[in-house]
Amino acid sequence: MAALVFALVGMLEARANLDGIRIGTLPPGPTDGIGDVAGVRVGHVTKIEGSGPLRPGIGPIRTGVTAILPNDDPWSTRVAAAFESLNGNGEMTGSHWVNEAGFLETPIVLTDTLAVPRASDGVITWLVKKHPDIGISDDVPLPVVAECDDGFLNDIQGRHIDSADVARALDGASPVFARGNVGAGTGMLAFGLKGGIGSASRRTSAQPDAYTVGVLVNANVGSQPRRDLRIDGAPIGRAMEGDYRPIIPHEGATAPTRGHAGDGSIIVIVATDAPLESRQLHALAKRAMLGLGRTGATSRTSSGDLFLAFSTTVTYPRDEPKTRQFTILRDDAALDELYEAAAEATEAAVADALLSARTMTGIDGRTFFALPAARVRSLLETMRSVPQEPPGPSPAR
Amino acid sequence: MAALVFALVGMLEARANLDGIRIGTLPPGPTDGIGDVAGVRVGHVTKIEGSGPLRPGIGPIRTGVTAILPNDDPWSTRVAAAFESLNGNGEMTGSHWVNEAGFLETPIVLTDTLAVPRASDGVITWLVKKHPDIGISDDVPLPVVAECDDGFLNDIQGRHIDSADVARALDGASPVFARGNVGAGTGMLAFGLKGGIGSASRRTSAQPDAYTVGVLVNANVGSQPRRDLRIDGAPIGRAMEGDYRPIIPHEGATAPTRGHAGDGSIIVIVATDAPLESRQLHALAKRAMLGLGRTGATSRTSSGDLFLAFSTTVTYPRDEPKTRQFTILRDDAALDELYEAAAEATEAAVADALLSARTMTGIDGRTFFALPAARVRSLLETMRSVPQEPPGPSPAR
Amino acid sequence: MAALVFALVGMLEARANLDGIRIGTLPPGPTDGIGDVAGVRVGHVTKIEGSGPLRPGIGPIRTGVTAILPNDDPWSTRVAAAFESLNGNGEMTGSHWVNEAGFLETPIVLTDTLAVPRASDGVITWLVKKHPDIGISDDVPLPVVAECDDGFLNDIQGRHIDSADVARALDGASPVFARGNVGAGTGMLAFGLKGGIGSASRRTSAQPDAYTVGVLVNANVGSQPRRDLRIDGAPIGRAMEGDYRPIIPHEGATAPTRGHAGDGSIIVIVATDAPLESRQLHALAKRAMLGLGRTGATSRTSSGDLFLAFSTTVTYPRDEPKTRQFTILRDDAALDELYEAAAEATEAAVADALLSARTMTGIDGRTFFALPAARVRSLLETMRSVPQEPPGPSPAR
Amino acid sequence: MAALVFALVGMLEARANLDGIRIGTLPPGPTDGIGDVAGVRVGHVTKIEGSGPLRPGIGPIRTGVTAILPNDDPWSTRVAAAFESLNGNGEMTGSHWVNEAGFLETPIVLTDTLAVPRASDGVITWLVKKHPDIGISDDVPLPVVAECDDGFLNDIQGRHIDSADVARALDGASPVFARGNVGAGTGMLAFGLKGGIGSASRRTSAQPDAYTVGVLVNANVGSQPRRDLRIDGAPIGRAMEGDYRPIIPHEGATAPTRGHAGDGSIIVIVATDAPLESRQLHALAKRAMLGLGRTGATSRTSSGDLFLAFSTTVTYPRDEPKTRQFTILRDDAALDELYEAAAEATEAAVADALLSARTMTGIDGRTFFALPAARVRSLLETMRSVPQEPPGPSPAR
Repeated sequence: MAALVFALVGMLEARANLDGIRIGTLPPGPTDGIGDVAGVRVGHVTKIEGSGPLRPGIGPIRTGVTAILPNDDPWSTRVAAAFESLNGNGEMTGSHWVNEAGFLETPIVLTDTLAVPRASDGVITWLVKKHPDIGISDDVPLPVVAECDDGFLNDIQGRHIDSADVARALDGASPVFARGNVGAGTGMLAFGLKGGIGSASRRTSAQPDAYTVGVLVNANVGSQPRRDLRIDGAPIGRAMEGDYRPIIPHEGATAPTRGHAGDGSIIVIVATDAPLESRQLHALAKRAMLGLGRTGATSRTSSGDLFLAFSTTVTYPRDEPKTRQFTILRDDAALDELYEAAAEATEAAVADALLSARTMTGIDGRTFFALPAARVRSLLETMRSVPQEPPGPSPAR
Repeated sequence: MAALVFALVGMLEARANLDGIRIGTLPPGPTDGIGDVAGVRVGHVTKIEGSGPLRPGIGPIRTGVTAILPNDDPWSTRVAAAFESLNGNGEMTGSHWVNEAGFLETPIVLTDTLAVPRASDGVITWLVKKHPDIGISDDVPLPVVAECDDGFLNDIQGRHIDSADVARALDGASPVFARGNVGAGTGMLAFGLKGGIGSASRRTSAQPDAYTVGVLVNANVGSQPRRDLRIDGAPIGRAMEGDYRPIIPHEGATAPTRGHAGDGSIIVIVATDAPLESRQLHALAKRAMLGLGRTGATSRTSSGDLFLAFSTTVTYPRDEPKTRQFTILRDDAALDELYEAAAEATEAAVADALLSARTMTGIDGRTFFALPAARVRSLLETMRSVPQEPPGPSPAR
Repeated sequence: MAALVFALVGMLEARANLDGIRIGTLPPGPTDGIGDVAGVRVGHVTKIEGSGPLRPGIGPIRTGVTAILPNDDPWSTRVAAAFESLNGNGEMTGSHWVNEAGFLETPIVLTDTLAVPRASDGVITWLVKKHPDIGISDDVPLPVVAECDDGFLNDIQGRHIDSADVARALDGASPVFARGNVGAGTGMLAFGLKGGIGSASRRTSAQPDAYTVGVLVNANVGSQPRRDLRIDGAPIGRAMEGDYRPIIPHEGATAPTRGHAGDGSIIVIVATDAPLESRQLHALAKRAMLGLGRTGATSRTSSGDLFLAFSTTVTYPRDEPKTRQFTILRDDAALDELYEAAAEATEAAVADALLSARTMTGIDGRTFFALPAARVRSLLETMRSVPQEPPGPSPAR
Repeated sequence: MAALVFALVGMLEARANLDGIRIGTLPPGPTDGIGDVAGVRVGHVTKIEGSGPLRPGIGPIRTGVTAILPNDDPWSTRVAAAFESLNGNGEMTGSHWVNEAGFLETPIVLTDTLAVPRASDGVITWLVKKHPDIGISDDVPLPVVAECDDGFLNDIQGRHIDSADVARALDGASPVFARGNVGAGTGMLAFGLKGGIGSASRRTSAQPDAYTVGVLVNANVGSQPRRDLRIDGAPIGRAMEGDYRPIIPHEGATAPTRGHAGDGSIIVIVATDAPLESRQLHALAKRAMLGLGRTGATSRTSSGDLFLAFSTTVTYPRDEPKTRQFTILRDDAALDELYEAAAEATEAAVADALLSARTMTGIDGRTFFALPAARVRSLLETMRSVPQEPPGPSPAR
């Protein structure tokens, strides 16, 4: 209950941030989040401990776990799914099986890069507890765990995640949930600002029978130059290029340059209640890529940009007869509006991540600033003060 | 010579259109076109004949051929290349071989959907004439020919392209070339407006040793809703949603609705002088997808969105010894700036296609309007009248 | 009628060849061919004209067209399908659309490499004649046309195929059909022997409700060393390595060495009446690859090895409502037996191609010999004279 | 030293098994194993503890870890690599990055399905110890860890692998190593027999400058029907179909039927000293698939069949200038002989796994028998007693 209240508060705070900042043209769902797709729940465990100089393996800690559940028990009721890689410089375990089977049968867990194994072990423990026949008379799971690198703010060598954290994130999952510096988003950076968890949803129309597409991102495109950032198309980044630069003691106010890489990545989870099979979900994931493109991100070499899409309404019960019946949408009758929703929700989820994040100081006093919503709102208002002209073709050309 | 003058005039006309409309932040090459990549040439044959009601197989004709040559003789000097499909509802022949070999060894030819075979036969004829040992003591070509459907304005059943047209387009290719309603772009539509051939180039910096990325598109995303159109991020489409609607006699002023499909597609050709191998060119093609995303396109079901990227400086001579030496860029040292250039040049090439196109009436009196540059310029000026604020982190948050 | 009689005679002749040569363990269908999958038909047009020295563009001619129809009208009743490339050094047009849509909506046509465009143009003509709204109020087709290079025996520059040939092959298609030096198989080579069209079918069991998998290959793996050839596993190629070498005047009895490539390829078409969706058909096509592996083929660099699988019982009517219902098999309940059938039928179809082919002399007096069935039979009998030992675990180890 | 002696003894024992059983026609390297590729080393930790009834989480234990090192320090000297999935019903973590980058920068570790996370965590620990800047001023690793399911003989829920086991396997790696019931192969099954680790190597010729292709497999295709098994093409499985059936108390002597799946998989690691880039290594991995096809395996639904190929001689130093020079082989000049070697070495490695394995009793008294080498040898001798006939084409046909 406390978790739900906390999540609600976090969500309302996030929404407040976005007040007056509308992305795109389609109607959002009630919470403008992935939980608007019925049955989908999200849980976070956030770990923020210590401050000051990095002591490898000890701290400071700025990391966490985010868990996404497509339904109450995906091991029993698997959901149609598809994985797509825009840039493979990252990890999402379990993805070969998702693509081979055409379904997802485990929770999706996000965490930091070096904590992936411990989080994955935690998923196995959690599943075995619920399904004790796993590996005996039942199949074995290949957990879906994806990472972003938070090592610029977090003691990533420490792998400060254990099985209990994973269980807590899963058990506390809720349709409404916090965004920004929470869970796996705790130590994220984006466009030289503080990044993190963002989410959005779009309905294909305002009709009651419309479908919903919900997106959750862990936005960590930290090395993407500020000038590239666009919000609803507006070149916010160009207007704020030299502004709110991170504070990096002993290095001057420069962008992160650890190694060649490691300073990027975005994980994009797309959920829908539209009845789609895996082939169609591959297509939907690609439209999420186009939505990412709208934000100005260019999937830099260091950025592992991985996408997973699932449909909650095309299910594969673990025990079913030899043949199975599907009802799915016909591509050319219904996909286009879902494509619009997926692109727009992804674009909006990235903006949500930036606007929900809070300024954070991590290891060695490094500080990344939050994108100030008021400033963005003001810029957008100016940039959008364009009267709609009357319709009709111009006769004289 | 005449062809060159014609092309130059066409190009200058195109540039005039774009005056005052700047896309992105990187410097363009001298012609802001794919021909800025040294050695790359483009030729068109445009076929506009007849008017009035459709007489299937006869006319009216609104079609053509566009040829892109990576160098003077790709059959002898093959270039590193990669093919990527965003949406496979289209055709680019020869692409399996491009991806298997990692190089391109034929010209690239664009035409209308049903004319692909005749254009492909024309490429074979042209190559055999230059290399008479083909199929005897020499290998056999698998021509790269891509299509967009112009059947809403053109008698597409007529397949009004022959081998002589292909040879003319190839033999007349030039680094400077016309854009808009030319060649394969003649009968194209985009965002409910007149589409066609567009091109742009971006340099990775203003330094003399910068690399150039050039893009040519055949933009035919005709069914993409107008409201989605963004130019340099600005929501031009929302501001002009009801404006310049096509005139479709006997149907009212509605968007094209032929069948379920056939009314879309975009072909994107990416050239660079940066030394990249095929694996890296796959990555570059994906960033062109992100650039397409910036325009608001969502790759609708009817849209065959196919990408081919090549490097003019990583070559595979047909006759070489058993081992070969490459010099290529290291991913993490140099790809990011090329990614920026590819995304931005693709975004700019789509804008160029719209701004270079001219209002056209095709079969059955159907008329699609050009996007009026003056209007776009004025909208963009308003939307961009934002003072750059002084830099520096905000202390009080 | 004549065509049917001819086809029957060809088929019986082919069967006679295989008398006593059993591949694998599963039961074949009545004709041991792809036509055993109900509704599937195959037609050939064979072009054998002239002899003596090559006169480029004139002759001698050793080529043809083979057409495969999944049902009577695939344009109206599309069938679930999937394309897979083992080696992309070849062409199968239309394959991007097959994979995007998950279905096949045109006939499949095979011909020689340089005749692909003319054959494809012929498919368009044939479809437009049957569906005159194509490109007007109906969609436009992207024909599936695949090639193998017959230029070692045939005047391939001549492109001796026209639209009428394609129409004849399509209109004459029948469930029973000739194999060997027919249609697109006319000028094929394999393992240094005469290759061509081969086919086989396997039922998943002897039960009446078993599913059938049928395979048709155009086997042209001409440069694959003889020693690699295995028939039902038996190392026939090692036993006949120096035997039946081709006669190549002016070059000595050497294997073909034209250019670096061009001397290989196999096209594999897999049909089934099991209700499978495209994702599952991708998997089935991969098992056909494993079956090809059994023959000893290694998919040499010059060999474009392309696979297309379709299900006749999962159909996509062109006109259907917004949602559609499928009945498909569950992967883990039924795919394994279909995998066995696909691998075994592919292995058997390659053997059929070799055993059905006849010794042929092509351009410049080049002669490739047929694999002598009697010899193979005798070798196999010796190699298989192994008594089945009594079952039961060995107690003393 | 002790480890080396143990490994040598194991290897010699393995070789003794294969005496008289020659697979294919190419010359093997000195140890007929992946260690014949200079620099490649393999280490095992084998865990066999307890017997009797399964006590979930406790035992009996029949599992282990196998580590493959492409060179002494892959983190510093990365090697060109490519991943291919034949059947994605399995896990190989780190594979998206391998394919994106075109190189491998971590060891490859094999273990049981549920132990993947703990093994992966162990790889991180091992790498951080050697490279303490990881995640601080250096990049972060995405370990390559692959699994097969040993849950039919092993208490797989127990995840009896820890970081120390991984370090021991890595630190003890040697060019010569044991095969069969060792390391990750400890609890494997194949064709209803005992499976495990197998390895083989093939040289492209007997010349001193020949290239070597080495293969290591963890063969666990337990549910593949016995009758499918072929050794060097010979239908050994048909001759021994009812023989050496596993003993499964309380179930009768039936094959494993746990759940729908979980009872399969093969991991195939291909190493070569030929200078190949990732594109070519993708092709090489596909030929390993063809070699797997020769064994009769059909990659059943439950079988996660995953392939990784690397070249030890195309390296990517972590610190290198902006451009890099490669020397690689030209496809059409040199790949064919490497394809032969990869197919044949894979076929031989599967045979080696079967012939090196020893009869094992696991949980609940389940016993799987080793394939008896003497029996195979005798069958093969009979099946191969075919005189080579004199060469020359048959004049009278």
